[in-house]
Amino acid sequence: MAGTPTQPTSRTRSWWGWGWTEAQPDDAECTAMGALLPGTLSRPLPVPRIRDLAIGSPAVEPPRSLAGLVSDEPRDRAAHAMGKAYRDVARALRGRPGRIPDLVARPTDDRGVADLLDWAGDRQVAVVPYGGGSSVTGGVEYRGDAHRAVMSLDLTAMGRVLEVDTEGRAARIQAGTPGPSLEDQLRPHGLTLRHFPQSFEFSTLGGWLATRAGGHYATGRTHIDDFVQSLRVVTPAGTSSSWRLPASGAGPSPDRLFLGSEGALGVITEAWVRLQERPRFKASAAVAFADFHDALRAVRTLAQSDLSPANCRLLDAGEAALSGSAQDGSAVLVLGFESADEPVASRLERAVDLARSHGGRYGGSAGPDGSPAGDAAVSAWRSAFLRMPYLRDGLARMGAVAETFETAATWDRIPALIEAVRTEIGEAALKATGHPATVNCRLTHVYPDGAAPYFTVLTAGRAGDEVALWDDLKAVAGEVLHRHRATITHHHAVGRDHRPGYDRQRPEPFALALRAAKGALDPRGILNPGVLVD
Amino acid sequence: MAGTPTQPTSRTRSWWGWGWTEAQPDDAECTAMGALLPGTLSRPLPVPRIRDLAIGSPAVEPPRSLAGLVSDEPRDRAAHAMGKAYRDVARALRGRPGRIPDLVARPTDDRGVADLLDWAGDRQVAVVPYGGGSSVTGGVEYRGDAHRAVMSLDLTAMGRVLEVDTEGRAARIQAGTPGPSLEDQLRPHGLTLRHFPQSFEFSTLGGWLATRAGGHYATGRTHIDDFVQSLRVVTPAGTSSSWRLPASGAGPSPDRLFLGSEGALGVITEAWVRLQERPRFKASAAVAFADFHDALRAVRTLAQSDLSPANCRLLDAGEAALSGSAQDGSAVLVLGFESADEPVASRLERAVDLARSHGGRYGGSAGPDGSPAGDAAVSAWRSAFLRMPYLRDGLARMGAVAETFETAATWDRIPALIEAVRTEIGEAALKATGHPATVNCRLTHVYPDGAAPYFTVLTAGRAGDEVALWDDLKAVAGEVLHRHRATITHHHAVGRDHRPGYDRQRPEPFALALRAAKGALDPRGILNPGVLVD
Repeated sequence: MAGTPTQPTSRTRSWWGWGWTEAQPDDAECTAMGALLPGTLSRPLPVPRIRDLAIGSPAVEPPRSLAGLVSDEPRDRAAHAMGKAYRDVARALRGRPGRIPDLVARPTDDRGVADLLDWAGDRQVAVVPYGGGSSVTGGVEYRGDAHRAVMSLDLTAMGRVLEVDTEGRAARIQAGTPGPSLEDQLRPHGLTLRHFPQSFEFSTLGGWLATRAGGHYATGRTHIDDFVQSLRVVTPAGTSSSWRLPASGAGPSPDRLFLGSEGALGVITEAWVRLQERPRFKASAAVAFADFHDALRAVRTLAQSDLSPANCRLLDAGEAALSGSAQDGSAVLVLGFESADEPVASRLERAVDLARSHGGRYGGSAGPDGSPAGDAAVSAWRSAFLRMPYLRDGLARMGAVAETFETAATWDRIPALIEAVRTEIGEAALKATGHPATVNCRLTHVYPDGAAPYFTVLTAGRAGDEVALWDDLKAVAGEVLHRHRATITHHHAVGRDHRPGYDRQRPEPFALALRAAKGALDPRGILNPGVLVD
Repeated sequence: MAGTPTQPTSRTRSWWGWGWTEAQPDDAECTAMGALLPGTLSRPLPVPRIRDLAIGSPAVEPPRSLAGLVSDEPRDRAAHAMGKAYRDVARALRGRPGRIPDLVARPTDDRGVADLLDWAGDRQVAVVPYGGGSSVTGGVEYRGDAHRAVMSLDLTAMGRVLEVDTEGRAARIQAGTPGPSLEDQLRPHGLTLRHFPQSFEFSTLGGWLATRAGGHYATGRTHIDDFVQSLRVVTPAGTSSSWRLPASGAGPSPDRLFLGSEGALGVITEAWVRLQERPRFKASAAVAFADFHDALRAVRTLAQSDLSPANCRLLDAGEAALSGSAQDGSAVLVLGFESADEPVASRLERAVDLARSHGGRYGGSAGPDGSPAGDAAVSAWRSAFLRMPYLRDGLARMGAVAETFETAATWDRIPALIEAVRTEIGEAALKATGHPATVNCRLTHVYPDGAAPYFTVLTAGRAGDEVALWDDLKAVAGEVLHRHRATITHHHAVGRDHRPGYDRQRPEPFALALRAAKGALDPRGILNPGVLVD
């Protein structure tokens, strides 16, 4: 729910941490945050410097015909070495980033992508597709040594909206288009994709498609998948271009094979996506619950109603306190409705009534139709939401371990799942560090048949050993999710960090089929090696 | 929109034609229908008899351990030789049905399915999965001679609802469960799947899943795909069982590979599907349009609104006349709203207002909330809809050629597409028969970005040569669809009849991936040979 970010005049993207360098917390802010978390360092780790990294010469050189598309500049290479998971930030802070790619390629069209893949296949060069670089699952790095060299394939030179069909509300958009630019280019047409993941400012359409990203809507069409009309994918075996169709029953969906393929089957270069009119009517409200289980029941009933809230986030007491939405131990349900079509105040009213009938307390007043959201808790939540990844990096500089992970499960499993994550991660962290961990939960998306809980884990680290502690806690999380048959990821993707959980969750015959498909499309095994299948 | 059919006391399924033998038109009715279509026969072809077919002995015998699951009874075999396309009916009427399977197997559990597949693989026996047998695309027959024998794998002995999760509104249901039985078993729980394809009475959950069937909803969740929580699929390479999840972003969706796989990758044996409360509020109305293009604009605007009608069928003048909905050359828009939650009269009113603002005329009165639909045109349409396949068979007995096919395209292509189908099929039929053909169109499902037109073609045949004429017209239709980039099928599936169009539509890299997946899951090539891939 990022909305459209304001654009400062001069900014630099951080090569090691989230977002803009200028927005990162300074030493004093880091120290103040650290003081709130027992067991962290007394002063922040220094901001890592590229000149301290051992960046060797590239192991390969591109042919002259492709040289114009390829950079071997050290800062460029360092900035493409990893995504933006806590694990990535911690590795950078400790001077042990992932494998620095030999080259960074920036093709400007499909021909360039195909040529780069051909060359890489001939030379056994691994190709890691890269959009905004905001992966939090190890999706954009190279691990291992089976390839002669590694090339990061940065799509951001393909960042245009190419065609807009205003009558049919769709647009053909290049994969490297970042969220804000995409919305900027659609705005003159009065249309919007309204896909706002937390990473919106720093992620691209291609990244959303390759990872089945979750976006704006808390109900209904939660994932980018549902907005895809057709895809164009360059594979080593040729270019796949599906027809623009509103729907089809012709065999298994070709697009659904590439959605979520994380660069392992091909490079998504463009898509026709479904758009909407910009909403004219909005209303939001926050409802507090003394009992989290009452809130769960309220949210389930809401998800099973016809009301379709655009926003329906349930924050547990810890999450509500952390974001400033409530400080009295209440859980908070943040509700939002929107429409381009008709006023939504009556739907909000019905939703609030429903929440009250399940024990919710409604104090604030809803924003009037057509105006921005009014409730203070809602505003507090939104600001905190956008600031969170920056704060995480500040805590990382204090040696804390911060992890967020999300999942989804059917309603019958939700209460025990949340309880088990809290207990088991908490115990593992306490045992490892001697300090109690904070484990908060919110529901980000809700369905008639289940929900997507999102967990935030905060704990003191083990100085110098933060990455290993993160790995241990991640393994505990994977175990809990598996035992409760909760998916290893609802919208963050599998990448490399979720492979153990993914491999156990995925039905074995599907793994056989996926491996065979990969063999057919990427016979030389150069595409993002290590994600999804080996 | 079949609703729940009434159950006569004693009925026999027709082995050669649609539905119940008792419901088929008699000779007098056939003759009367034929008289309306110039160039047809003067009296009906006789109802075909099984004893006139040359049914040889089975080429293989099952092992003793599987004998209890297998039938070689001639009527059983004849009834499983084909689906229920016009082409199938015409072949039966002319005494030239498709290849009669050697055996009909009726497993009662997954173990039985796996054992049958193992045995068939060892013996090079082709296995054709069979649900209700209502395929209209050649999906349940065998063509060719690459296999030693053919076994129809009838799933209807697996016809139970196994578990119901009332809190999470989902049920685990065996694939062989026919529509009416599925709803009967859910009714005591107060829940419904509300998936009502025209074939509802004679098709099964497994058939819907394997063919990505279209159902009740004209907007939003139009296909069975959206109701799938998890699938269980027995393949020659092992059993695939996905987790029950409300949503997931873990790699490409395993379920979406099997949805629409038409028995070529495995045998779907059960699914967890999402259910709903039974609707308590309903309202419907019909709006007439003098100009079909006005109606198209009205329907597009409706599809792009927040109104979400459950029914939104636009009948062109011919279709409206044929179904008795309007006799004055008007196009008719049949609208329906429903909810378990809240009255829908105001939504219907807004939809009617919107239609009027685009030139629609609203004469009848809407059914009051909670009562069955009231408008006479709506009722006329519903009765005709359910009776249509029977009438088609009556016309086939008069030597007429009757074809229905459906597609989907984006809004920008819809007007020219409909016009081209009308013109080109009409001309081809006139040239072939010397008689003008009837080509009617209705929109069955509508989307913000496009629509699904459904065409009905009626023409005199060429006595004795009806199948070849049908094939010629089908080829013309395929050409038109391809030229207009309209999908070869919106919900009828590919089968064997749509292979030429499907092969041209499907992106080649996806074909490579699908072929590889088939090779991995069905290495001996026994599963429904000829559909989707070779």
